[in-house]
Amino acid sequence: MRFRPLFRLGFSCASRMSGDRTTSSAVRPSNVATQYQEQLFDSAAKGNVEHVLAMLKAAVDVDAKNDRGWTALMFAARNGQVSVIKSLLEQGCSMNVLNSSGQTALDIADFWNHSDASSALSDGAVVPTQECQNYYSLNPLNRASDRRKHPEWIHQAVRRDNTKFILFSDLNPFLIEDTNQKSKKSKYVLGLFSYNQLAEHISKKPLLIFLGLETWDPESAVWFAVDVTGVEESKLKDVHKDGFFANPFPLTMQMDDRHAGIFAEARSILTWHDRYSFCATCGSSTVVQEAGYKRVCSNADCRSHKGINNTCYPRVDPSLIMLVVSPDGNRCLLGRKKTFPPKMFSCLAGFMEPGESIEDTCRREVEEESGIQVGRVEYHSSQPWPFPAVLMLGCITHAKTETIKLDNDDELEAAQWFSRPEIVQMLTHQHPGGLFVPPRQAIAHQLIRTWVGKTSNL
Amino acid sequence: MRFRPLFRLGFSCASRMSGDRTTSSAVRPSNVATQYQEQLFDSAAKGNVEHVLAMLKAAVDVDAKNDRGWTALMFAARNGQVSVIKSLLEQGCSMNVLNSSGQTALDIADFWNHSDASSALSDGAVVPTQECQNYYSLNPLNRASDRRKHPEWIHQAVRRDNTKFILFSDLNPFLIEDTNQKSKKSKYVLGLFSYNQLAEHISKKPLLIFLGLETWDPESAVWFAVDVTGVEESKLKDVHKDGFFANPFPLTMQMDDRHAGIFAEARSILTWHDRYSFCATCGSSTVVQEAGYKRVCSNADCRSHKGINNTCYPRVDPSLIMLVVSPDGNRCLLGRKKTFPPKMFSCLAGFMEPGESIEDTCRREVEEESGIQVGRVEYHSSQPWPFPAVLMLGCITHAKTETIKLDNDDELEAAQWFSRPEIVQMLTHQHPGGLFVPPRQAIAHQLIRTWVGKTSNL
Repeated sequence: MRFRPLFRLGFSCASRMSGDRTTSSAVRPSNVATQYQEQLFDSAAKGNVEHVLAMLKAAVDVDAKNDRGWTALMFAARNGQVSVIKSLLEQGCSMNVLNSSGQTALDIADFWNHSDASSALSDGAVVPTQECQNYYSLNPLNRASDRRKHPEWIHQAVRRDNTKFILFSDLNPFLIEDTNQKSKKSKYVLGLFSYNQLAEHISKKPLLIFLGLETWDPESAVWFAVDVTGVEESKLKDVHKDGFFANPFPLTMQMDDRHAGIFAEARSILTWHDRYSFCATCGSSTVVQEAGYKRVCSNADCRSHKGINNTCYPRVDPSLIMLVVSPDGNRCLLGRKKTFPPKMFSCLAGFMEPGESIEDTCRREVEEESGIQVGRVEYHSSQPWPFPAVLMLGCITHAKTETIKLDNDDELEAAQWFSRPEIVQMLTHQHPGGLFVPPRQAIAHQLIRTWVGKTSNL
Repeated sequence: MRFRPLFRLGFSCASRMSGDRTTSSAVRPSNVATQYQEQLFDSAAKGNVEHVLAMLKAAVDVDAKNDRGWTALMFAARNGQVSVIKSLLEQGCSMNVLNSSGQTALDIADFWNHSDASSALSDGAVVPTQECQNYYSLNPLNRASDRRKHPEWIHQAVRRDNTKFILFSDLNPFLIEDTNQKSKKSKYVLGLFSYNQLAEHISKKPLLIFLGLETWDPESAVWFAVDVTGVEESKLKDVHKDGFFANPFPLTMQMDDRHAGIFAEARSILTWHDRYSFCATCGSSTVVQEAGYKRVCSNADCRSHKGINNTCYPRVDPSLIMLVVSPDGNRCLLGRKKTFPPKMFSCLAGFMEPGESIEDTCRREVEEESGIQVGRVEYHSSQPWPFPAVLMLGCITHAKTETIKLDNDDELEAAQWFSRPEIVQMLTHQHPGGLFVPPRQAIAHQLIRTWVGKTSNL
């Protein structure tokens, strides 16, 4: 919780409130803040838009929380106050705040069946849907895949003044500090370069990937990723003096959400080029085509030129990640891989195999890793994970058995059932034993949060 | 509809029915059949288990339909008659029959909120869930992936008396006619061979894939796929005289559902071996490991031996297939590829790209192919499609615009909105213009059927 120094501002708006006794200068500043906040919550719950706006003007943080982690948006959602929801969203409130039961405002509106409120909350999302928006999936570019087949268009697009280049060296992105004051969550953004700043390097014909067109720009500026492996970092500092090639973890998880999405597209493709430069069908070298989205075998007699064939296209590896819910619905199963940070627990996960449906993989992996048998599988959301090019398919699944049996050969060193109160402690970093779950950028976090939200007793 | 010759049987059961006037020998056979059928439907709707069983014993087809395509199971589902549902399932009735509104018994039970009936219907599925069970996804084997890493175990398993081998030549499976009288839907099953019948060929070390263990057999018999490319078909006819190597389309779509699932696992892996025999990272040859689930580069210095690396593992290509519903919810969008059979329309589809979520791909593909913008995306079910190794992710998505604009460069030659009554005609092959949709084995069919079922007015 952050409050601007309320007591230093004049109370011009407060004076408009009926029955307001909190403006007396005898009241301690923190109490004033608390009482204004309470008024904000109360007006949000009752649907009084004017009061809500007055409280915000009086400098109450739009995302302020009460002691149970509830925000004004949640109070409005609880009572289906659509006008208040719209006003709060216009004032820039966050829809992703979590209360101490692990719920968002949307979870609350859904739970209480306020469908208009749910819609209003969904419309406020980046894309107007009720979907979970996972980190690395918020790429705002239009991929405009039809342009890839027009090399002259690509050649000209590279040379335009407003074209933007992002740089990679040994698959690490060139990042700069995020100086945008509005964004409190993100530490870094991609360092952007123009053609003129890279002309010398581009003349050497490096690997260039066409990423897409800006959807938010009337001129549809074009974005490319360039492999500058071998170029000295110091040469690039003329453009961005604090820029650097970042190790992916944890730095790419601290990026602006949209830049993280663009990074995910670029890095998945670049890792494919890095590992797939020879033809898997005949072992010959390959030639890059379609602005970086295809590699064709240089051997004219190769079978890869005939019939249905996937060897020329970038690979995407579908993988399942699942939250297993206990038969009584009150606990969930989390595990620890040996490679996890100490005290972190997460959802079980595993790669899909050829010939499997999502549901098959989920049942197989849970049984292999934990000995638990699961029945129904519900898809939750998906997340591209660009290390190297994984598609995480997030599911919530329902256990039919409870006895955990770890596979000794497996990477899992522990697995156990956790109650909802314990999960809330782990989500909010308040667990007495210090246990915690992955951060919001991981789809595992979203699965866990969804389960806590759906089953909580509001 | 098929009836056994009812009039030739004695009516021992019929005589137990009160008010039964249909057993007179003066009644024409077809009328007797119809009237018995009506009694079956009536007892199913009223919950009279004894009568239902009597009618079945009197040789009424358990899956008989009335003129609106309703079965006894649907009548029981309509009225929440759980005991009848259980009895009908025990008698081997099909849960997947579609009435002329495109609904299954489960759709009907769901629609009328008979949750006990829905559960009973779900429990009758191969796996006790409410999931859509797609063709090619009903593999009943336990993959027992831990065994793959134990070559001695695999060596011994190959030589066991009860081990079963399925054969492929140039990726085509060896099929035989399905002589199981109970199964009316399937024409073919996999031809099974024993070690003794193949010992000579196995001694030449062909490509052998460990498929899994029988879950229905107390001795957990082991299944393998063997590549017998080059072996003459005639040599195998000693074992199965009518067996043959089948072209995948349409023959593998006319298989027993479970064998189709086993085929899907085997063929996906075999096509990977066929196209990925060289290391994509360095171009060297590769060596098969893990009972066919891994190919390792033979060059000890290759980078593929280090770090996170997917080149050694079978590839699975995630692809989206989506039914687009109109903004008013009353129509759906189907398209025609140039390569489709004449008059067939189906859902739009396209491969996922690196760095995309399911929802992103859905929105991108629909806009690229049809010019329609879509919002919310709902996951429906998934289907492995072993040509070569595609994972079809089926979604239903909601359009925000209506004007169709085809991309000239695209494979789609037509796309149009269809109303629900038209879709029912297309599903049931009664469309006046002869238009139709793919058969039940395709996930597109299931998506279309789900949409028709959810919005129909029972």
